[in-house]
This record gives sequence, structure tokens and C-alpha cells, in this order.
Amino acid sequence: MKELAELSKLLRYYILLSTTNAGSGHPTSCLSSVELMASLLFGGFFHFDADNPDNPNNDRLIFSKGHAAPLLYSLWTVAGKLTEQELLTLRKFGSPLEGHPVRAFPYAEAATGSLGQGLSIGAGIAINGKYIDILPYRVFVLLGDSEMAEGSVWEAIQLASYYKLDNLIGILDVNRLGQRGETMYGWDLSAYEKRISSFGWKTICIDGHNFDEIFKAYDEALKSKLPTMIIAKTVKGKGVSFLEDREGRHGVALSEAEFKEALKELGEIKRLTISIKKPDSLKPKQQALEIKEFTNRYNIGEMVATRRAYGEALVKIFPEFPDIVVLDAEVSNSTYAEIFKKHYPERFFECFVAEQNMVGMAVGLSLRGKIPFVSTFAAFLTRAFDHIRMAQYSEVNIKLVGSHAGVSIGQDGPSQMGLEDIAMMRSILNSVILYPSDAVSTEKLVREAAKYKGIVYIRTTRSTTPVIYSYDEEFPIGGSKVIRKSDKDLFTVIGAGITLHEALKAYEELKNRGIFIRVIDLYSLKPLDVETLKEALSETEAIITVEDHYPAGGIAEAVKSEVGAERVYSLACRKTPKSGAPEELLDYEEISAKAIVDCVNKLNKLFRKYKI
Amino acid sequence: MKELAELSKLLRYYILLSTTNAGSGHPTSCLSSVELMASLLFGGFFHFDADNPDNPNNDRLIFSKGHAAPLLYSLWTVAGKLTEQELLTLRKFGSPLEGHPVRAFPYAEAATGSLGQGLSIGAGIAINGKYIDILPYRVFVLLGDSEMAEGSVWEAIQLASYYKLDNLIGILDVNRLGQRGETMYGWDLSAYEKRISSFGWKTICIDGHNFDEIFKAYDEALKSKLPTMIIAKTVKGKGVSFLEDREGRHGVALSEAEFKEALKELGEIKRLTISIKKPDSLKPKQQALEIKEFTNRYNIGEMVATRRAYGEALVKIFPEFPDIVVLDAEVSNSTYAEIFKKHYPERFFECFVAEQNMVGMAVGLSLRGKIPFVSTFAAFLTRAFDHIRMAQYSEVNIKLVGSHAGVSIGQDGPSQMGLEDIAMMRSILNSVILYPSDAVSTEKLVREAAKYKGIVYIRTTRSTTPVIYSYDEEFPIGGSKVIRKSDKDLFTVIGAGITLHEALKAYEELKNRGIFIRVIDLYSLKPLDVETLKEALSETEAIITVEDHYPAGGIAEAVKSEVGAERVYSLACRKTPKSGAPEELLDYEEISAKAIVDCVNKLNKLFRKYKI
Repeated sequence: MKELAELSKLLRYYILLSTTNAGSGHPTSCLSSVELMASLLFGGFFHFDADNPDNPNNDRLIFSKGHAAPLLYSLWTVAGKLTEQELLTLRKFGSPLEGHPVRAFPYAEAATGSLGQGLSIGAGIAINGKYIDILPYRVFVLLGDSEMAEGSVWEAIQLASYYKLDNLIGILDVNRLGQRGETMYGWDLSAYEKRISSFGWKTICIDGHNFDEIFKAYDEALKSKLPTMIIAKTVKGKGVSFLEDREGRHGVALSEAEFKEALKELGEIKRLTISIKKPDSLKPKQQALEIKEFTNRYNIGEMVATRRAYGEALVKIFPEFPDIVVLDAEVSNSTYAEIFKKHYPERFFECFVAEQNMVGMAVGLSLRGKIPFVSTFAAFLTRAFDHIRMAQYSEVNIKLVGSHAGVSIGQDGPSQMGLEDIAMMRSILNSVILYPSDAVSTEKLVREAAKYKGIVYIRTTRSTTPVIYSYDEEFPIGGSKVIRKSDKDLFTVIGAGITLHEALKAYEELKNRGIFIRVIDLYSLKPLDVETLKEALSETEAIITVEDHYPAGGIAEAVKSEVGAERVYSLACRKTPKSGAPEELLDYEEISAKAIVDCVNKLNKLFRKYKI
Repeated sequence: MKELAELSKLLRYYILLSTTNAGSGHPTSCLSSVELMASLLFGGFFHFDADNPDNPNNDRLIFSKGHAAPLLYSLWTVAGKLTEQELLTLRKFGSPLEGHPVRAFPYAEAATGSLGQGLSIGAGIAINGKYIDILPYRVFVLLGDSEMAEGSVWEAIQLASYYKLDNLIGILDVNRLGQRGETMYGWDLSAYEKRISSFGWKTICIDGHNFDEIFKAYDEALKSKLPTMIIAKTVKGKGVSFLEDREGRHGVALSEAEFKEALKELGEIKRLTISIKKPDSLKPKQQALEIKEFTNRYNIGEMVATRRAYGEALVKIFPEFPDIVVLDAEVSNSTYAEIFKKHYPERFFECFVAEQNMVGMAVGLSLRGKIPFVSTFAAFLTRAFDHIRMAQYSEVNIKLVGSHAGVSIGQDGPSQMGLEDIAMMRSILNSVILYPSDAVSTEKLVREAAKYKGIVYIRTTRSTTPVIYSYDEEFPIGGSKVIRKSDKDLFTVIGAGITLHEALKAYEELKNRGIFIRVIDLYSLKPLDVETLKEALSETEAIITVEDHYPAGGIAEAVKSEVGAERVYSLACRKTPKSGAPEELLDYEEISAKAIVDCVNKLNKLFRKYKI
């Protein structure tokens, strides 16, 4: 107990030292969690092989309240994995000790800092431990009370209960104060207890600065048969009298003078280095899954929806990629993830109508070496944009699949139409975006996606479309297919997905009139096949891009960014869509075969008239 | 009671008739809610002036389960506002009766169809009734059980309780079946009751097909001092034996043969037209708010953060726009929405860390004629992308304000940096995007945003920047400011926000070396001042755009889309950011004054060498 008090003082010292030195940070948010975290890591509850962060037996700790990063770094300094000198590099350019945790710091499980995401990530890691790797590790997630307002936390709470994640333990630091003032419930622990327990979690309310209560709570939590939330009443700024429970001190570092005062209050600091208990050495007890045969080939001309080919592809490639895990948000009969579910139910996890949590869980699964394929309607992936944004900072390997792209879904209308998903996924710095036009290319690209390390987005189509490629064709990321070409090509028409087929129809119509167009299937939207595009621009008079997507941030802008916009014309959805038959809507948005033919004819007239 | 049974049969007939005729739709999801909605509208509980949907005294009904649209249309057919012929235009191109409700149908309060958003919209309308217009109308929201998995519903539930919205009544249709199978809780009403009541709502569990119970429930709900959720056990497909409680019938219309069978089961249909009870005629009892004087002018050279100017602008323009309501998500001391809160607390609503619900509530407030200004960090607006996406289909008048744009926020690191927000907002078809570089332009643009009817996004900067405009300057939407110009301009540098100031620094440095650049402040990113851009491109050798934003979908792509990309060069954030001082990060991402100078020099050398 004496050592715990010394330990807490040392941690407080490190927190104040590092943030004061940095001139910024969230010291008061760190100070409230000190005893909770000190007990966890150094009280023997947390088992972690500090020399091997990737040891599959390690317990996992996620700071959902990512702004408490200085506490995380302080803990690992005590654990002997950071020197005090290194600790002083907090928030400095080039240091792995960033303002909020990132993977550059090996003991940060995930990048956090956008509140309300950590519990989903933890749930994903817990699912891996309970159902896939079958290892007894625990997942601990430190949450702030302010972030309990985020709906995504309640998605995670629901799903964790549904999946009986008794290996998931949340520690809720109820310090009463959010950023600008008191939270909705202040210190009323019963408010959290009532709500969280109503979702089927075990809850344990404690004084978050009382070691006896904290230790008892962890003991209980580790024995619990339910996911557990330790709800701890704490004091923001605890340990420094002029900071304790004060408004207006969120995210404010101490001044030099304040730091000196605080040091006086802390008194003598005893340096300690304490080892973290190592886990037992166990091998993942993954079930050996029986491989299900699935070998249908697609024949040219067959009508197959690319969304169906997606589901079938998952089954076909699973033997080669046994780390694949498939998640879907209540629409697996539409995205066809259900085909995989039927064959490998042990590796399919229904996420219900909760897309944010689904992406968070995918991040968690990826951190434990799995390859998550995550599907819903393209439009509904926008629900999870912040989770996708943060996923890139966790440097994860996840595959997002958006079906029902564009107005071509028809009568359901705009709420169900993905028209901004390409723009969204292009804004993820290092994403790969694939948009197959037929079943063969879908299958090949799903395999490319599984091979690739990083965030990949695959856009699939609702309606059936003809198979146009031979089953032996390959589709490298960053490539394209020039599927109609002659030395008489007037213009180049670039399509993808449904518009590729419209382009082919337009080709036939124009050919009958003696006009030849080059047709390119731009199945890789990111990275682009710049060489082929430049070649087309130099060998034909203009490029016309056609996309079932809004204009901003889509295919036209991507192409123009690379090859210039001088002779690049864009057909895209420029009007608010409505219900209607797919063909009607393609015409209405002027991205149909008819619209392509019109555009070619108009441009042709224009170019002849002005001798361009 | 006999009439209610006849009414229910008629509604079922209309639902089956319209969806069968359309060949698509969600009849089974409609059938489970028939008695609930029939009782509401025709049992005297719902007061609505059917000749005047915009009557401020009307109760409001939102179909959060938007796919039950055919039921909505059927109800209004019985109310005499649609003919049966019109009903048969369901899902047809050009009909206001779309697959999911849109505002083209005057009795759809909002566009829904992306699940889990209706309760937030309802909460916004309820807040208007209880706190702003002070009118006794009620807001009813029909929810499906499947969408209760969405975290955004729990955000709305929390906030509705916090704001004591006793005028908000949810009707939860628990028909057990989601799209692809059973929900997490099936028919266990107590699961919903436990959870929802734990958040401080009154809950009433009933048989959703029993009129006695339904009527009692509405009676109770209308007397409740708490927000109320009526939790109704229902049968999906109720009324047609081969549809009732069947899996695999979600979103599937009946075949002609099935329809004939169903008609046999329904028996004789009696046509009815029933008026909906009109509300009492009351005038909004808005508090007359005391106008707070706030008249500080900004002087050229003064260092003021545009985020602060935003907060001050709100106070300055409020007297001219008394319909303004300000919402913020726990960061009002960072976004400076707190300045407005301090002056007009009655028009400020804290939304806590729940951005999705905040945007949903803004939609609701806008539908009731208010002008919501909604703020949080630009990065965290991505949390609400699906709500923003759907907001456009409700044709609302909302202003979104994202602070802490770009890497220039410094040490907090990437989790807090908005680097994809311009791309996101550009993908909203008819959005306006404003990015002021100083306090004067911020104030003027906030006023332009308030004047404009539609979705506006304003991007603000964390750090202080010098005032560069005279206080009398005007800033029309779609304009730009050429702030450095000569007949010796070699290149044009386009900046906005923080990069405009870097461009000005670069200008000085280059001028000292005898090189002149045109500098344009692109404060209106959408719509763009195409004329000025084209002029710059024709009068100077190249355009260099500089943005504190990722490359995709941002300023460069917007500019290239309009004026071509031949001689347009882009400086943007092309590397994953880190913690660091703002200046360090601007240099690291090569969007600083130094980087601009380098770029100009490099291009200059290149152009001279190859005599471009």
C-alpha cells in the first residue's frame, strides 16, 4: 500500500513534468485515472510481456479517453520501457509520444483521441480472444465519463453483451467534468450503473482513488461471467489542490510556477521501476475450420451482381487467407456477406444496425492479426466516417465493402444510395479503392484486397451485370482495363461498376454510326492507372468519365488531378436523386448509355466546329 | 372499435396495393405498425391541420423507420390528402411518394431511411416546442426495433431526458425481425423497457395490435412528465397469414398471386376518409430576448483567431436573425460558441459529446423555421457524416462550423485535426463552403451564412491570425479576394484560412527577391469564384493552391475541376501528420510560407529552363 502511494506520486510527477515541459496536454484528465491504472498495471491484474508487445497472450489496454496519453506514457516509464528523457519528448515533433496515442508508441494498442471509439476496438480484440484465437487474455478499456454521451459507446456495450464478452473490462473514470463543464450526470455513479447494467453488463461502483476498492473491483471483474464496467468516482486533477475538481482546467498544462507549487504538494518523489506481470505462454487454440469447397467459375455473358460475387469471393479465398473475419451490419442478405456466413459461420460476426461499432471492432480484430472484411450499404458507411478516419491512424489492415452504390439501386431512393462514398474513402490518405464492374474482376479484386496490407474499399453494385472478363484475367491494384480500343478512337470513355456497362452499350450504338470510342474500365480508382489514362488523353481527343456518384471528390476529380482537366469531361450525378427504375435514374442523372452517346456527339460537333 | 378494425383493414389494403403495384417496398414493416399509427392519427391523439402542414401548432410525426413510407402514404390517403390514384404512384419516377419519405411529400416531416436518425430530429422539434416557440405540440417518432442498435438513438434518448422533453413520444414497433433475421432482443419487451427507462424515459409496454392497450398508452404518454417510449409487441406482416412473423420477407413486395391471396384474407374493404383533429390555434410564445450589445470592430493587424470571431459574430448578428439557435458538442470553449451562450443562453443548447444527435436536432430545429449553427472540431463533424448526408434530403437550412482545421492545430496530433472535412462537405450536392482567413471575413461570412438558405459549412482556425481586411469589406458567397496583384505576377498562389497567411509571408519573401506572385484568398470554396481563377490562370504562368487539408476532394481538386489542371499545382498535406508545433507541421506537410517559396522557385526554374 505504501508502495502504491509512492507509485501514484511518481505517476503524478511524470504526468505534470511531461505536460508542463510540453506546454500542452491534458494533465487533469490524467490525474483522475492514476490509481485506477497504477493498480491495473502494477497490482498484478494486467499481464503483459513488455519485451514483446505483440505476444498473442498479452492482455490489452486501450485508452478510449485518448487525451490521457501522458498517463499512458508515464505508466510505461515506471514499467521501464521509457526513460525520463524520452518522456520529456511528449508532443515534440518526431516523438512517438504524441498528444494522443498512436501506434508509433508500441504500447498504445490503437490510435485514439476521437472519443467513444475505444470500447468498440476493445470489443473487437475481445471477440478475437473469445471466439477466434481462443486465448484467455483480457481487454481493458479506460473510458472518460464525458465520452459516455457518444452513441458508439452504447453500440459497443450492446454488442459486447450480445457476444458475451466476459473478457472485456471497462474502467469508467467519472471525474464529473467534461471539456467545458459538468457532464450530464456529474458524480451520480448510479446513473451510469443503472444504464450500463440495463444492457447486461456487470457494474462495480467504487472510489477511484481508494486502492482497496480498486483492487477488489479488478478481482471481481476478472471473475465476472459478464462484460464488466468498473465505475469509479474520481477527482479531475487529483493530487494537486489547485487543480482538483476545477472547471476551466481541461486540456491546460501547468505554468512553470504552478508546476513548482504542485511539486511542493507532491513532496518527495521516489523513483520506481516495476515490472508488469507476464502472461502465461499459450498457443492460440484456433479451431481448425473445415474448408468448404466453392469453385464456381463465371462465364462471359452470365448476369451476376458484383455484390453477390463479393460474397462468393470471400468463400473462395478463405482457404488462402484463414485470418479473414467477416462483419456486416444487418444487411448480409443484401451485401451477400451471408454467403460467407453460411460456409464459415465461426468467422462471421453479425454487427446489427451499428456501423460505427462494426468499424471499431474491425480495427480491434486487425490489431490482433485478423483481416476483417466489413460490409454494409455504401451510403451507410458514412455513418462510420470518424471511425474510418481514426482507423488510418491505427495503421490497420481492414477492408470496407459498400454495396448499393449509386442511383442505379433504383426505387429505394436517395437515403439508400451511396453517392459520396468514393469521395469519403479517397480522403483517407493511404486508402486503396477498387470498383469492379463484373463478377470476375470482383473475385480477383477481393483477393487483391486480402493480399494488400492497409485500408481497402471495394464498391459493389446492386443490379446484375454481365460478366465481361475471362476467368483467367488478373486485376492488379493500380491497373485498369482498356476493353475497347482501335486506332480510330475519337474519345475515351472511362467507366467503373455500373457505368462501365453503360459505356459498353454506348460503344455499340456509336460504332453503328461509325464513331469509335476507347472504353476503359477504371476498376482501380486509387491508385489510378495514370499511364493508361495519359496514353488515352494523348491518343484520343478527350476523356469522358462516367460515374454513379456525386461530382465532388469522385472519379472525374481523381482523373483530373492526375492527367489535367483540359480535355476531361465529367458525367456524374448532378441532381438530387429520387425513386425510380434504375434505367430511368441513370438517364435522369445523365450517366446512362444514352447520355454517353449524347455527350460524345455533342463534343464531336463542338470539336469539329472549332477545329479543336 | 369496429371502425378501427375497418380502418386497419383499409390501411393494410393500401399498403399491399401500393407496394405490389410498385413491385418493391417494405410491406411487412408497414403492416406491423398499422394499429399503432391508425390509433395515433385517427384516435384523436394527433392534432394536425391537414390543410396547413406548416401550422406551428401541429403535432409532428416522424417515421424514423423510414422504410415504412407506404404506411405513411396510406395514412394520409385515409386522411383525404392523397387519392388512391396518387397512392399508386409509389416509387415511380417523379412521384413525391418515394421509397423512403422525402420533403416532396408535404406530410413527411423529414427525409428518413437511414435508420436511427428520426428520434434526434424529433428531439430537435421538441426542443423548439418546449424552449423556443413555447407551444404545446407533441412530437411522435415511429421507430423500428432493429434501429435501436444504432448508437445515435441512445444519444437522442440521453439528450431528450436531459432536456426533459416531455413533449416527445416514441413508438417502438417491436416486430422481432430485422432485415436479415431476428434482432438482438427479439420480442423481449422487457429488454427495451429496462434499457430505455434506465435513461429516464417513461416506458409503456403493450400489444401493438390491441386498440385498448394502444389508446391507453397514448393517453398515458400525453400526460407524462417525462419523454415516453411506447414499446409495442407487434407482428411483422400482421394481417396476412403467410407473411406474419416470417423471415426472408423484409423489403419484399408481394407477387400478384400473393396479393390476391392477401386480399381474400382481408375480406371486404370499406373505403373511409377520416379527418385528423386540428390543433388549437395558438401563437408561438417566444420569449422576447433582451438584445445584448456587442460591437467590437476588428482593426487591421490585430491577432484574432477566426474561431473566436465566429463566436463573436453569432452575437453580433443575432438581433438581425432572431431565429438563430446555436448547438455545440462539449467544445464550446474551443469553438467559441460559448461567447453566444454567454449572451443568449436561451438559444444555446449543449449537445455534449454526441455529434450525430446534434446534427439530427439541428435538422429538427430547421424544420421548425430556426437557423441552427452547429459547431464542433472539423474532425469530429465526420462523426455525423450520415446525418449530414441525410440532412440534404430534408432540404434544411443548417450551418455547420468546424474548428481546429488542419495540421496547424499543432501538438494535439491527427485525431483532432480536420483534414477531410472540405472533401466531406463538398460531397453534399448543394452545400456552400466558406473558409475565412481573418476575423473580419469570418464575421461577414457568418452573416452571409445566416442569410443563405441551405446547408453551409464554415471552417475555422485554431490559432490567431492577423486581421487583413478593413471592417467595411464585404464577402459575397462565391467570391474571392485578390489581395496581392501586379502586372508582374509570375504565379498565383491561392490560400484559405491559415494558408492564406502563409501565402502572404511567402509573398514578402519573394518580393524581396524580385519575384511577384498574385495572392488570392479563396474564402468561398463552394461555389468557387471561377472568373477570378480563370483570369489568374490566363494572366500568370501557373496557379499554386495551398491547403491545410488532405489532397483528395479539397481545394486543389475543386479548383482543377473548374479551371483545368494543366498549370495548377497543389500543396496539401500528403503525409500522415504527427504532434508538433504548428510551424513545424506546416513545414513538414510543405504548406508553409517556406514551402510556397520553394515551390515558386522550383516552378520558376522549370518554366525558364523549358521555356514554358
